[in-house]
Amino acid sequence: MKRVRIPVSTVNRLSLYLRVFGQIEAGGQATVASRELAALTGINPAQVRKDLAYFGQFGRRGVGYAVSGLKREIRCILGLERDYACAIIGMGHLGQALLMYKGLRDQGFKVVAAFDSDPDKIHWELEGVPVYDIAELKTVARELNVEIAILAVPGPAAQEVAEAVAEARIPAILNFAPVPLRPGPGVLLRQVDLAGELEALSYRLQKL
Amino acid sequence: MKRVRIPVSTVNRLSLYLRVFGQIEAGGQATVASRELAALTGINPAQVRKDLAYFGQFGRRGVGYAVSGLKREIRCILGLERDYACAIIGMGHLGQALLMYKGLRDQGFKVVAAFDSDPDKIHWELEGVPVYDIAELKTVARELNVEIAILAVPGPAAQEVAEAVAEARIPAILNFAPVPLRPGPGVLLRQVDLAGELEALSYRLQKL
Repeated sequence: MKRVRIPVSTVNRLSLYLRVFGQIEAGGQATVASRELAALTGINPAQVRKDLAYFGQFGRRGVGYAVSGLKREIRCILGLERDYACAIIGMGHLGQALLMYKGLRDQGFKVVAAFDSDPDKIHWELEGVPVYDIAELKTVARELNVEIAILAVPGPAAQEVAEAVAEARIPAILNFAPVPLRPGPGVLLRQVDLAGELEALSYRLQKL
Repeated sequence: MKRVRIPVSTVNRLSLYLRVFGQIEAGGQATVASRELAALTGINPAQVRKDLAYFGQFGRRGVGYAVSGLKREIRCILGLERDYACAIIGMGHLGQALLMYKGLRDQGFKVVAAFDSDPDKIHWELEGVPVYDIAELKTVARELNVEIAILAVPGPAAQEVAEAVAEARIPAILNFAPVPLRPGPGVLLRQVDLAGELEALSYRLQKL
């Protein structure tokens, strides 16, 4: 398939379409109209058609889009034809929950290692995943070819860990620590700010 | 304080500034320049100045912004002068982790109740929070004045739960279930798509 340059906002919506295609397939439906897709995702129909047209997909009038083909193509665009080796750093409640969360494994994000600095946690095994000493990050990351570091450490520790990630040549970080990170040079970063999501709601709750 | 109409993107950045102000205060620093704030958040300095000007804050040349005052003002804008009663629906790994996550409590989001449909989990208590039968949602939500429902249920159950939330008159949902939701009329919704965050990374990892 030829590679297309797609805006970031569209990439985020592709994930959303992927979830909906999963639902539609599970319901035994083979095609979907852009209007139905719009209703299921909350995205307007014109935007849906524009997004899907980026990679040469046009729904057929009266028939709609073929779900399984589109799903395959979106997975390909998102780089999901293969699995990604992930490491979770920080084995507190959140880190443990992410390790056990089936939703990531199902999408091809396999947690192959966990790290902590607490001697009581190191050398545990959780769901078959070994917990290593954070001091071993570089060695283990290279050995297991870790591509994504999921940070679930306390805020004050996060920047130092981000630097260790860069040194270990792990190319991407998903950060759950409640602080903005400056990733090392060449390291990709996504930030999930859980309190920030709730704050966006509290802001709007005041206006009700 | 007078109420200002602020764009959604700015509201999201306010949460980020708030985190950074927390860090700066913890470091014992009383003022911050827009350029430093920009470096710490990864937002460009002109945008920082524009965001903070929305509520009449202008840094003083050579002095910068007063951290504690700005922090208080942002908390006020985000509606954080008071606590919010939250309920977590779904006591799987993720729901349990969110319940125990100190980061939410610290920001004023107090989990007052949890819900599940599994008889083995109902009538548990976790960190002092009782787990109720989801069938009791309406009664308990009214009694405890729940304002935010945090959904950590499996995808196929999510839409039905969202409808129960609307019926219980809970005005806001933070959804972790990996499906797009159609919230009931008048219900505010934020969606955290954990796999989607990783997919945004896998997309960019291919281009490296």
